[in-house]
Amino acid sequence: MPSSIVSNGEAAVKSSPAAVSGRVSSVYAEVQSSRIDQNLPLPSVFRSSFTIVDGPPSSAAGNPDEIAKLFPNLFGQPSAKLVPSKSNKAQSDKKLKIGVVLSGGQAPGGHNVISGIFDYLQDHVKGSVLYGFKGGPAGIMKCNYVELTAEYIYPYRNQGGFDMICSGRDKFETTEQFKQAEETAKKLDLDGIVVIGGDDSNTNACLLAENFRSKNLKTRVIGCPKTIDGDLKCKEVPISFGFDTACRIYAEMIGNVMIDARSTGKYYHFVRLMGRAASHITLECALQTHPNITIIGEEVSAQKQTLKSVTDYIVDVVCKRAELGFNYGVILIPEGLIDFIPEVQQLIAELNEILAHEIVDDEGLWKKKLTSQSLELFELLPRAIQEQLMLERDPHGNVQVAKIETEKMLIQMVETELEKRKRESAYNRQFKGQSHFFGYEGRCGLPTNFDSTYCYALGYGAGALLQSGKTGLISSVGNLAAPVEEWTVGGTSLTSLMDVERRHGKFKPVIKKAMVELDGTPFKKFASLRDEWAFNNRYISPGPIQFVGPASNAINHTLLLELGAGA
Amino acid sequence: MPSSIVSNGEAAVKSSPAAVSGRVSSVYAEVQSSRIDQNLPLPSVFRSSFTIVDGPPSSAAGNPDEIAKLFPNLFGQPSAKLVPSKSNKAQSDKKLKIGVVLSGGQAPGGHNVISGIFDYLQDHVKGSVLYGFKGGPAGIMKCNYVELTAEYIYPYRNQGGFDMICSGRDKFETTEQFKQAEETAKKLDLDGIVVIGGDDSNTNACLLAENFRSKNLKTRVIGCPKTIDGDLKCKEVPISFGFDTACRIYAEMIGNVMIDARSTGKYYHFVRLMGRAASHITLECALQTHPNITIIGEEVSAQKQTLKSVTDYIVDVVCKRAELGFNYGVILIPEGLIDFIPEVQQLIAELNEILAHEIVDDEGLWKKKLTSQSLELFELLPRAIQEQLMLERDPHGNVQVAKIETEKMLIQMVETELEKRKRESAYNRQFKGQSHFFGYEGRCGLPTNFDSTYCYALGYGAGALLQSGKTGLISSVGNLAAPVEEWTVGGTSLTSLMDVERRHGKFKPVIKKAMVELDGTPFKKFASLRDEWAFNNRYISPGPIQFVGPASNAINHTLLLELGAGA
Repeated sequence: MPSSIVSNGEAAVKSSPAAVSGRVSSVYAEVQSSRIDQNLPLPSVFRSSFTIVDGPPSSAAGNPDEIAKLFPNLFGQPSAKLVPSKSNKAQSDKKLKIGVVLSGGQAPGGHNVISGIFDYLQDHVKGSVLYGFKGGPAGIMKCNYVELTAEYIYPYRNQGGFDMICSGRDKFETTEQFKQAEETAKKLDLDGIVVIGGDDSNTNACLLAENFRSKNLKTRVIGCPKTIDGDLKCKEVPISFGFDTACRIYAEMIGNVMIDARSTGKYYHFVRLMGRAASHITLECALQTHPNITIIGEEVSAQKQTLKSVTDYIVDVVCKRAELGFNYGVILIPEGLIDFIPEVQQLIAELNEILAHEIVDDEGLWKKKLTSQSLELFELLPRAIQEQLMLERDPHGNVQVAKIETEKMLIQMVETELEKRKRESAYNRQFKGQSHFFGYEGRCGLPTNFDSTYCYALGYGAGALLQSGKTGLISSVGNLAAPVEEWTVGGTSLTSLMDVERRHGKFKPVIKKAMVELDGTPFKKFASLRDEWAFNNRYISPGPIQFVGPASNAINHTLLLELGAGA
Repeated sequence: MPSSIVSNGEAAVKSSPAAVSGRVSSVYAEVQSSRIDQNLPLPSVFRSSFTIVDGPPSSAAGNPDEIAKLFPNLFGQPSAKLVPSKSNKAQSDKKLKIGVVLSGGQAPGGHNVISGIFDYLQDHVKGSVLYGFKGGPAGIMKCNYVELTAEYIYPYRNQGGFDMICSGRDKFETTEQFKQAEETAKKLDLDGIVVIGGDDSNTNACLLAENFRSKNLKTRVIGCPKTIDGDLKCKEVPISFGFDTACRIYAEMIGNVMIDARSTGKYYHFVRLMGRAASHITLECALQTHPNITIIGEEVSAQKQTLKSVTDYIVDVVCKRAELGFNYGVILIPEGLIDFIPEVQQLIAELNEILAHEIVDDEGLWKKKLTSQSLELFELLPRAIQEQLMLERDPHGNVQVAKIETEKMLIQMVETELEKRKRESAYNRQFKGQSHFFGYEGRCGLPTNFDSTYCYALGYGAGALLQSGKTGLISSVGNLAAPVEEWTVGGTSLTSLMDVERRHGKFKPVIKKAMVELDGTPFKKFASLRDEWAFNNRYISPGPIQFVGPASNAINHTLLLELGAGA
């Protein structure tokens, strides 16, 4: 451990005058520093010589003809798989110059992908150089980078956050931006770039790979699957990193709140969880903790539910629980819930239109512009939410859906409906809601043993793919229900994950987000148990993530069930 | 492990038809079940025979004459200390009937106090009976109890929550209620009652002890110091249980948010923490994590700060950080902040008066009833907070201070002040606040090794005090910075912790809440470092509580510093 890292215990804060990184001058908590030197196992294919075997030609997730047109140099690439061999024939001995970039929101494990790439280069192509682009893709555009040395990387090993080189949300879109990337690649003489990101960022990685190849640049591009939301996955990429850690942090908090609910006996806790597009986090947390009610956006959408029907479902459970003597409970709600409700989408679209063109008068005459269905919904909403819809607008004047505190909205709507049922003598208890939002707490936690190891393998594998000259692939580590030694390592053609969307009259390539499948094993398991959980209080409080001892090598239920390995 | 507890792994949910307790039919997570069989060390005085030695007569924390009048049978009692002896002379062999009650809000470790009492009786007075009163003191009044057997207690060992017998907030106040307690004591032939609670509950325990003694009942009463807020402590009772676990849960979340803030680089996270009366939790979390800004209520009060001056302090730091290139940060705020600001108290008092007697007109004529200072403050408040003050009232018509989301209020006030500074060209960045409230998440977590062991010793010691016929004492375990073997065990006269308050023309006994001492070691350490933390980002992310391995035996900074053992 470098002397400038002081292990916890509140020792004096030492700082290195030559500090190059935010963490070099940090005081570390004992758990943090104990993680730094944690040795991580690698899949056995890395134990000796290996070679890379190509699979059959690939296609696309949809509209292969359009994808083929958009990626003429990459379309159809086979997947690559590392297999043991007598000699490293496929690998050249040439020293490499590699860049790495973090793109989009934080996810636990990102630092380990970087240390995996670094260690691969150290172990297999000694003398190679690794650059870290700072602040996301903009770092590539502006050629803003730092050379990542052993000393620089050391304090970030097995640590949460993206602060080693930070991230950003820029994308390569304009010709100018692609030109800047080319200039950076040439200036640094890059053999490859690893893009660590979600669906958008990996689409961007593929565009960059295509562009470099079309310009005959030697620079290859490899993606890595990152997002706590868990919505970037496919057969070859069974999970995105960060999902495991984030869900276990949320589940710890939910479990604590459950025990509190049962002990106090008088509160309904409404917990909103991150995950706007897909409800994987909410589903996983439900499988880990067994809440009384769980709303899954994909089901709400498939059943074309309304806000009223979601509210009624909650109220029905609250009333039945009251009959059973339970005046408390825990309810999980995905952040993106209202994005899944068609009538809310319609109302918001109408509001955006009205707010852009009409004067909103105090008398409410503007409401006459709403369709009757939207007006009815608007009047159903609690006053605070109405105001939020009217007042909180983004720079384009649009309603800021993400700012709506869905959990508070539901509490108020449930209160209102329960008052009605009280008048009808269908309910006679006092309802008290408590709201929670668990989001930022989960994005930068210390990665679980699973995420630490998985990310390290993803990075190590990305190094191998680049050394063998691959491009336009996403690093793919599989067989994850087996011991780490048996994990498979390879790369999957990014174009094979793509479909197109029509935007502004043009086809745009997109990696479709993996939504919760209503006929998938995780949802089906949840659906088969939710009534039992609703009325019989099968709460589980998983407790804090452990790094040694019991449960330290646990893996999330979603992954295990999808791999057919869940109990 | 009883067969009805299924260890995690998502095995089938088995339930026992004869389930007597909420947990007997529970599915346990692996960490939960691994904790159940955790053996806890006991102070060495329990390893062999011991006797109880009385100290000198005690007085009171204030107004000893009034306390003496209120507690004629108990006042002046000496403290008791367990010391090794050749034989258990002080202890009779008579089998005991003991009751235990949980009083007030949840705190991690309560179940271990109960298992400590139970095990003491098993180990020392075999054949004794332990009753658990259900739902707090009301369980005593209504004689609502359950016999706590080894099987009943087992699934709760080292587990969070109060759900073994649940808690309640009733108090013994009326003659009728004391009479009910007497009847229960006689009906169950109780030799003693252990009251596990905070300052109010221990005052109540003392009143009960005094009443039983005045009626010549054999029933003794022993208190146990419980509250996550950390505001029940004195020389002999160095800490209340639950504080350690709760702070470490909050610190885990704060640490995660810090890494997120540094990685993203664009948010100020405002974190409100539980603790209405005292700011110990906020101070402890600051010492564990090193936030950029920490507001301590006791300091705000001592310096007679205004809401404007608190806002200005935050804004000054934000502006200076912007100059240093940091457009992010983490700010800790105690839940009770506004209770510490005299002008806010004044405004609320005036509002309560006005809301009770005046019609609140839309034109705002009612505002003329406010004093000019209060009007100025009211106009300074964000609109949402103004509305909260006007609309959210308790059944008595009073403003509900606890419902005010102080963190959101401060974000809005900081935003407004920064806009002003922008116009004055003193700030040129974009400020984005994110709000968090960490409260319920910390009250029912799995207790740390410290809280598990401390609570077990508190309960075990309470058993010893009752066996030796003590009453009106609070179980006291000391020398906590030393290894558990060296911890001291005894009891402190509850009347010695008391002072009186004048209410409705009468003297009422109260255990004064222990506030953050501005000349105490924890605050002084914080004060000496806060500027360093404000501008140099010394964030610590302590990570999740560990039960084995590194940091599993850590103890909170406040306790160590107060014991003179902190670094």
